[in-house]
Amino acid sequence: MTKEKILEAHNRIAPFIHKTPVFTSSTFNALTGVEAYFKCENFQKVGAFKARGATYALSELLTSNKGNVHVATHSSGNHAQALAWAARQFGCKATIVMPSNSPAVKKDAVKGYGAKVIECEPTLDARESKLEHVLQESNAVFIPPYNDENIITGAATCALELMDEVDNLDVILAPVGGGGLLAGSALSAKWFSNGRIKVYAAEPEQADDAFQSFKSKSFVPSKNPLTIADGLKTSLGEINLPIILKEVSDVFTVSEEDIKKALFFVYERMKMVIEPSSAVAVAALINNSEMFKSNKVGVIISGGNVDLKQLAQWK
Amino acid sequence: MTKEKILEAHNRIAPFIHKTPVFTSSTFNALTGVEAYFKCENFQKVGAFKARGATYALSELLTSNKGNVHVATHSSGNHAQALAWAARQFGCKATIVMPSNSPAVKKDAVKGYGAKVIECEPTLDARESKLEHVLQESNAVFIPPYNDENIITGAATCALELMDEVDNLDVILAPVGGGGLLAGSALSAKWFSNGRIKVYAAEPEQADDAFQSFKSKSFVPSKNPLTIADGLKTSLGEINLPIILKEVSDVFTVSEEDIKKALFFVYERMKMVIEPSSAVAVAALINNSEMFKSNKVGVIISGGNVDLKQLAQWK
Repeated sequence: MTKEKILEAHNRIAPFIHKTPVFTSSTFNALTGVEAYFKCENFQKVGAFKARGATYALSELLTSNKGNVHVATHSSGNHAQALAWAARQFGCKATIVMPSNSPAVKKDAVKGYGAKVIECEPTLDARESKLEHVLQESNAVFIPPYNDENIITGAATCALELMDEVDNLDVILAPVGGGGLLAGSALSAKWFSNGRIKVYAAEPEQADDAFQSFKSKSFVPSKNPLTIADGLKTSLGEINLPIILKEVSDVFTVSEEDIKKALFFVYERMKMVIEPSSAVAVAALINNSEMFKSNKVGVIISGGNVDLKQLAQWK
Repeated sequence: MTKEKILEAHNRIAPFIHKTPVFTSSTFNALTGVEAYFKCENFQKVGAFKARGATYALSELLTSNKGNVHVATHSSGNHAQALAWAARQFGCKATIVMPSNSPAVKKDAVKGYGAKVIECEPTLDARESKLEHVLQESNAVFIPPYNDENIITGAATCALELMDEVDNLDVILAPVGGGGLLAGSALSAKWFSNGRIKVYAAEPEQADDAFQSFKSKSFVPSKNPLTIADGLKTSLGEINLPIILKEVSDVFTVSEEDIKKALFFVYERMKMVIEPSSAVAVAALINNSEMFKSNKVGVIISGGNVDLKQLAQWK
């Protein structure tokens, strides 16, 4: 995950992904006293930054495997769609193990990209054993959602674009779930700003395993996370954790109430559909705005996949 | 409303407004067979194209009136916010007559820009007589929402930017309420494409006064419009109508069901918050996509001001 590798990844995936826009909001800046730059991965292919890592991981696989490549993963969220979509771009076969209680709209989206969906019981054990079964029965290659060097390298291209577009950023703020986006952002900040830009993470209080891992400097698993930020419920990956411990300045946690407030601020004032996981980073910046007064802060809006019916219940 | 006047208006308002982005959607294009370009005025100041006309009308007023200019209007919608906001940019006083049943959030937004809000009974008669009272009691100047050359000229700058960004457009599609955006778009298309670009209008079936006026070539007033597209309920202005009759190719109408479908397509696939009036244009393009097969069509997304609680009821 060197500087050269991230640049190469960006060149490799650029023909497939969107160079997403960076938005500003004078209302947000007036409210917080921060000069904020929102990197809008909600406008990315499949509606999330996950398209970057999936595309890069698959393109790496194809450099050594010509011909009929078959990839597989288990996911109920954005990685499922991202891998299915990326596989279609490269003409590869994809099998996605999804929990039976995944919303039909998500299963349909994955099928819509031409991937095969295999349902399983909605537990991590069931997901892993069903995937193991798929891998043994076929020649499929497992593409993990975050605990993978290529996935982290692909995710790193998002902060690279942000720094390329906004000069002299002081800070980058990213949400943390499994840690792919955060580790990638931290590596990009390190390499491309010579360590000048500080990287902070944002996490729900109700799913604060990254906060606890960061403070104790050792892995703390996610236990019974109860948050509307469904993308941030997972535990940190073992490849991601040491990068985060070394390169990230701090981890902020935010309440469910603050997540909802930030979500509706972005909807009502910035006119963007974002998912709760992205609102976590916005909320963390609002809560800690005093600390970043007059700083140029890049906020990574990780995705925009949200059930609009649920949204109204949060209002 | 000459070519030179529109260019001058654009130069004049450019320091105040956003040059809004133009979005594309590969999903939309695959679905319709059209090459669509969405000009996103939902990301404009105050969340609507209305910021353009209000800024230009006010700047024109200030060229001949130095000192304490005071403007007034009646509006329950985007023009109220736009005029209040524009007045603040220029340090002018603004008084807005708003119907008593306007949502508190809209009244608060107008007050938040520093304008004075005067409430009246929720009828057009009451609005007009209350405004007349304000004008007589003060030296305030009335800035109308659409039936005004400066407002039309300001609105015309939106299509100007769109044509500047996208080469060789074949068509521009805009929603029509009072007709300021439509007339302005048609004039810009005429002047800046030498009449090559055809302009079409979109209107709710349940508020089809522009359609009827267009077909009968004479003014038909809006009567009891029953549509979720609250911005398109008004009758055409008398300055706007002859421009529309001369420069617009056709008016499409769409059902309430189609408006909702288009609205949720944009939310779910394009991750943008748009208001129902904007979804009317998207729906018209979906319904008439066969006619525009392989054409480059610019669609004006007029605004993004919508009550999110209402939104869920439409789903």
